[in-house]
Amino acid sequence: MYNAEAYAASSATSPLTSTKIKRRDPTERDVQIEILFCGICHSDLHQVRNEWSDVMPTIYPCVPGHEIVGRVTKVGSAVQKFKPGDLAAVGCMVDSDRTCPECRAGLEQFCPNLTLTYNFPDKHLGGVTYGGYSGSIVVDEHFVLRVPSNLSLAGTAPLLCAGITTYSPMRHWGVTNGKKVGVVGLGGLGHMAVKFAHALGAHVVVFTTSASKKDDALRLGADEVVLSRNSGEVQKHAGSFDFILDAVSADHDINAYIQLLRRDGNITLVGAPEKPLAVAAFALLFGRRSLSGSPIGGIAETQEMLDFCGAHNITADVEVIPIQKVNEAYDRLLKADVKYRFSIDMASLKS
Amino acid sequence: MYNAEAYAASSATSPLTSTKIKRRDPTERDVQIEILFCGICHSDLHQVRNEWSDVMPTIYPCVPGHEIVGRVTKVGSAVQKFKPGDLAAVGCMVDSDRTCPECRAGLEQFCPNLTLTYNFPDKHLGGVTYGGYSGSIVVDEHFVLRVPSNLSLAGTAPLLCAGITTYSPMRHWGVTNGKKVGVVGLGGLGHMAVKFAHALGAHVVVFTTSASKKDDALRLGADEVVLSRNSGEVQKHAGSFDFILDAVSADHDINAYIQLLRRDGNITLVGAPEKPLAVAAFALLFGRRSLSGSPIGGIAETQEMLDFCGAHNITADVEVIPIQKVNEAYDRLLKADVKYRFSIDMASLKS
Repeated sequence: MYNAEAYAASSATSPLTSTKIKRRDPTERDVQIEILFCGICHSDLHQVRNEWSDVMPTIYPCVPGHEIVGRVTKVGSAVQKFKPGDLAAVGCMVDSDRTCPECRAGLEQFCPNLTLTYNFPDKHLGGVTYGGYSGSIVVDEHFVLRVPSNLSLAGTAPLLCAGITTYSPMRHWGVTNGKKVGVVGLGGLGHMAVKFAHALGAHVVVFTTSASKKDDALRLGADEVVLSRNSGEVQKHAGSFDFILDAVSADHDINAYIQLLRRDGNITLVGAPEKPLAVAAFALLFGRRSLSGSPIGGIAETQEMLDFCGAHNITADVEVIPIQKVNEAYDRLLKADVKYRFSIDMASLKS
Repeated sequence: MYNAEAYAASSATSPLTSTKIKRRDPTERDVQIEILFCGICHSDLHQVRNEWSDVMPTIYPCVPGHEIVGRVTKVGSAVQKFKPGDLAAVGCMVDSDRTCPECRAGLEQFCPNLTLTYNFPDKHLGGVTYGGYSGSIVVDEHFVLRVPSNLSLAGTAPLLCAGITTYSPMRHWGVTNGKKVGVVGLGGLGHMAVKFAHALGAHVVVFTTSASKKDDALRLGADEVVLSRNSGEVQKHAGSFDFILDAVSADHDINAYIQLLRRDGNITLVGAPEKPLAVAAFALLFGRRSLSGSPIGGIAETQEMLDFCGAHNITADVEVIPIQKVNEAYDRLLKADVKYRFSIDMASLKS
């Protein structure tokens, strides 16, 4: 065991503050990583403030962060994919049982014995896992990703959650060249969805409540931008979309989007509104449409996504901050005052 | 043109009464059918009572009925599939444009220029189409189905709506040998779903609110029956279903069933509750599950379904009534007092 610098919350109402946490010495299959950047995901805020107490109550101290990139500092004797000095990344998962049908299918995100990167029982040290708001992390190599060398590291970090969460459902539901894809909500997830859909060759339409985001949406790769409050504009797209990615966590009228799908079209939720969505059955019946949800992606697909980003030079648009500004960043996150993701420069942890 | 006997409603609050309607003389592509049996679908009642005034307002007089079997009495000169004396069937559709992508894909049910069997503009005679509560009907041969010779005709009629509505989504979502399939609600649609899922080789679990239906569900082909009010029993099936068919039109908790799906499982609505369903996003996210709707099926698939029924000796369980009891049957339908479909013996029209 060794001590690592970190930022942790000590209760649901405490700010994140500097602390020291224990990390295990690398076992034979482990990779030790010096964390260079960690993205701030809205989940971090939910978890820190115990807003998911029903399903995933928070154990304190809580060190969040699951959008991690860094450099390998040490590897165990059995590690094959990494050597010290390599770039490496870690996302939302750090372990699973490797033997269940989900794991064997490369879909570790559905493993019943999954270990999430933070706030999950830590099999090695007891207590809970600690995430990426830290100077280093030790992770089994199966859950460590290779990072293309041509990408900015600050913008790569958010790919590990915001990236894979939007890439995976597009691949699953067959977004390819010539398909018409809608993206609802232009935030951390939505802006990645626009980049991926565009790079996959789709005709991309962004639905946003903010007229001010129009130019930005076009810059990110949208072919059209529709103000979602203008129902006439929205209605022009009725029955035309192959796939819509809904990245809105706030309560909203999902039926307005379901009826934009063509026959057999799918709308996938990646945001999780607190209140149940009111879904009109007729909108699904006419056109054999489907409504789904999708959580992150498996390790193999996460690597595929990173390689795709390398090939297409895709990263998240980030505002880089020092760790000392993390609490301020959380407040701004609640006002959607970031384009489009905060990425913490972990060098600041030493200052 | 010629006169045909029929039963029609003259307003939303009138009972169905005996009348005469005009039918066209068969054109070169038409098949004239003497109707022998017509099933009573809940849609007939909704339409007759103008309960869908928002989406499909009723034009009176209204002659409902879209579960039609009979015998061919005359064919047009270009008709190839039928000759006088053949058994024949007609379902919910009598015309479409034949040229749109949906029609070319054999999915006429999604054609934007579809003509439904009743209460839709009649291109030939003006006014609206009249359905199967009648002594005869004239339909383009493309929309006329062949009937296997080994099936009881009374029980075959409901296959044209209740049958295809449940068969089509099972085929679409891959119900095959060894899959675990749930059927929610054991009524006209549900009892057909049980028969199909069983014949397709699935392990079939019926969810019902009525303990009294348990033995019947097993007789119809269910492997297990769960009382849906017993949440402990329901919960035992969490995460285990490949596919669930939800045939309940009443307001109900859809999330209780969504969480019974395994990864990538689908629940398809074939009933259409009036009120929007409250759908919890988390239930869809965990497991990448999907919620769909499905309306009837295309003509080719309807023929496939009828042939499947012939091969597996499947018909609907019906209570045969004379047309004079149709209003009484509607009242009983509202109390779910029928096992499991009324089939009108059209010979009664002459008495």
